[in-house]
Amino acid sequence: MILAALRAALGEAQVLGPDAIAPRYFDDETGGTHGAPVGLVRPGSTQEVSEVLRLCLAAGQAVVVQGGRTGLTRAALPRTGELVLSLERLNRIEDVDATSGTMTLGAGTVLQVAQDAAAEAGWRLAVDIGARGSCTIGGMIATNAGGHQVFRHGMMRAHVLGLEAVLADGSVVSAMQPMLKNNTGYDWKHLLIGAEGTLGVVTRALLRLQPGVAGHETALCALPDYTALVRLLALLQARLGPRLASFEAMWDDFLSQAVAVSDLRAPFEQAWPCCVLVETEGPEDGALGAALEEAWAQGLLGDALLAQSGPERARFWAYRDAIGEITRGMALFEPFDVGAPTAQIGALVEAIRARLAQELGLTRMVCFGHVADGNLHIALELACEDQRHAAEAVIYAAVRAAGGTVSAEHGIGLLKRGWLGHTRSADEIALMRRLRGALDPHAILNPGRIFDMETPR
Amino acid sequence: MILAALRAALGEAQVLGPDAIAPRYFDDETGGTHGAPVGLVRPGSTQEVSEVLRLCLAAGQAVVVQGGRTGLTRAALPRTGELVLSLERLNRIEDVDATSGTMTLGAGTVLQVAQDAAAEAGWRLAVDIGARGSCTIGGMIATNAGGHQVFRHGMMRAHVLGLEAVLADGSVVSAMQPMLKNNTGYDWKHLLIGAEGTLGVVTRALLRLQPGVAGHETALCALPDYTALVRLLALLQARLGPRLASFEAMWDDFLSQAVAVSDLRAPFEQAWPCCVLVETEGPEDGALGAALEEAWAQGLLGDALLAQSGPERARFWAYRDAIGEITRGMALFEPFDVGAPTAQIGALVEAIRARLAQELGLTRMVCFGHVADGNLHIALELACEDQRHAAEAVIYAAVRAAGGTVSAEHGIGLLKRGWLGHTRSADEIALMRRLRGALDPHAILNPGRIFDMETPR
Repeated sequence: MILAALRAALGEAQVLGPDAIAPRYFDDETGGTHGAPVGLVRPGSTQEVSEVLRLCLAAGQAVVVQGGRTGLTRAALPRTGELVLSLERLNRIEDVDATSGTMTLGAGTVLQVAQDAAAEAGWRLAVDIGARGSCTIGGMIATNAGGHQVFRHGMMRAHVLGLEAVLADGSVVSAMQPMLKNNTGYDWKHLLIGAEGTLGVVTRALLRLQPGVAGHETALCALPDYTALVRLLALLQARLGPRLASFEAMWDDFLSQAVAVSDLRAPFEQAWPCCVLVETEGPEDGALGAALEEAWAQGLLGDALLAQSGPERARFWAYRDAIGEITRGMALFEPFDVGAPTAQIGALVEAIRARLAQELGLTRMVCFGHVADGNLHIALELACEDQRHAAEAVIYAAVRAAGGTVSAEHGIGLLKRGWLGHTRSADEIALMRRLRGALDPHAILNPGRIFDMETPR
Repeated sequence: MILAALRAALGEAQVLGPDAIAPRYFDDETGGTHGAPVGLVRPGSTQEVSEVLRLCLAAGQAVVVQGGRTGLTRAALPRTGELVLSLERLNRIEDVDATSGTMTLGAGTVLQVAQDAAAEAGWRLAVDIGARGSCTIGGMIATNAGGHQVFRHGMMRAHVLGLEAVLADGSVVSAMQPMLKNNTGYDWKHLLIGAEGTLGVVTRALLRLQPGVAGHETALCALPDYTALVRLLALLQARLGPRLASFEAMWDDFLSQAVAVSDLRAPFEQAWPCCVLVETEGPEDGALGAALEEAWAQGLLGDALLAQSGPERARFWAYRDAIGEITRGMALFEPFDVGAPTAQIGALVEAIRARLAQELGLTRMVCFGHVADGNLHIALELACEDQRHAAEAVIYAAVRAAGGTVSAEHGIGLLKRGWLGHTRSADEIALMRRLRGALDPHAILNPGRIFDMETPR
């Protein structure tokens, strides 16, 4: 019924029945199970997305919005009865303005394609995540994607100058002017950014670009304890200011696993509780080395290596990038993405380790993360599927006690909605539900993502 | 009736009847006329603000929220029948964290007090506006204040890590964790920032601080035309990256007026169509001078002066700061705060000048602004009050034609609500009204600000 209406509106070619849907539309990065969607539609313009949603609202048809399906919370996995709304055809880079440093593009554009187009014009799209080869700009906006340049350049939100979106009733809202300032009423784009597709479907974006990078200085620093890490961060901020671009922590468990699963040698002569990969952006004038000498004199460093060449810089990053190999070596694992105030993350790691070992006998894990952003990742190996909920309970209880968040950058989706109350108060969740009710009263957009107990009506 | 209920809840001292209200609560920076409020209440905590709003909602009592009353859109001016809700007692700096570079403070804290406290801890609150001595943090959040460091550090929104607010029904939402990342449901704080007090009353904030500044390089550049200005901006961005902090344009009318009303000499030997005050943050290593030499070689500059000392830097800024003296010399004037894509502002200025002269015979004005942010200010002298609406119509029509905004940083308030549709589409305004209806269905918070035709019910 809905498929017939969609075919009448969009033509036959872009509306597929359930049996014609290719397997890739059923998968995301979590390996979670999917349901049986009623079909798949691939609109080619904002106007077509609007027509799709008008028809869906009239029919009470729930949709699941898909970008590159690289999310880690199952938000894009189709559930039974949903219509898959893929934005993959909205993949056109409409404009790169090399004078003002902006880029206008469709939501289905792959990140790396956008990064390359920016670079070709002498600019940089200063947001980067591991899934760059397949994640889309629209998905990154819907999830407010993070990555390893957030401390310097902000999350996806900071790069969005303008947005075009379709609301649940099919109305199109568009604010695509290339201006940093526009204080005229509510800045609704910020409400849609990070809403995981539950408040509207992003179809186009205008992104702010940054000047190309002049150079990098990179170091791998070993720390005697976590307190030294926090003091090192403060010192580097004071000395390097906006040049400090990355500050990636790796605990001892991470580094030893990275060495075990790869052909990398241990970077330091002895083991240290924690190490940090530091990188600057800007002229290669020795500023990082000078700051590290100061840190050394203050006793903050156990050891430190300053990259002397491009290949050495790449080798330092190879430790951090070994996470893929590490988790591939785990038969069954869960990737945690939690947050807490930077100063408390050291104690949080210790508390989590102790409680997982004590209460569940789980000891195989690696801890790492963008700690300057207050973001800790834990890849935890589970012995069996039954341990998953108990492990989540242990970790999220520790996070709650630290005043932290159950999701720093991945979002809530289907996977973490049961834990939302560990980070957000009842009044905050009530506010969110009021907003959801105001914009999508029939809950047809990504129902059940973020919020429990929600069915389209 | 409402006053009795408020006195019972908060005590006698902080609830004043209409005759006891001091004159300062009736004024803002626009000199606009006010109505007859029913009283004034000065709560001392978030909890007391919550009690006030609960009582007001029950009584159908509209409130006008006041910070430092330095706004330029009359949003804080009391209208007849409203209760003045002053946040001046929420002025405590609760904490400055010198390790992580964050600050927790009450909404009534004056900006300069917060800036000084940050500086004392070795950090910087990197937002600054002319009203720093009396504007409050809560007002700056409610209006998403801008200023002359936006290009580098962003608007007020970019500095807010955490927020606490009271909604129209008295419920308290609080998200005061010092973390850059928290992707758990809707980031509601971004909806309240810039909503001019119509969606909730901000009571506390957690601000992100920036490292202290190592130094400045400052130059005053004369440009042969506006095209050269745009190219100069692109060149400086490419060469200076994040060190480029200020890029303040002053048209010839501004500079000649500045010289006429002050004891400043003309900075250049001849008049130029436009000049720009450029400032960097960072080491004083000659980078700005080198970039300007390159610009000179490309023919982008008519003339250029590089500050050789602190006093010379201050003298350059004195031209820009002469705006106060210039407007004091105008018997009747209106300060416009419009926006457009940076590349189009030159043509916009010419179009506005021509049409104001042609259609209204108005020729006395000065044009200046944060053009790198797409922000143009015009101080226009009027011959009589009757010209105000016609002048607005001319300027906002030109702005609309340029795809610009009727308010870049001041907001809408009472003054510009008739022009909101020049910048926002009907679908955007419908979306805003849905949000307003969801959060304050009885329109008791700042009614009539932003939106026309709104009465408390």
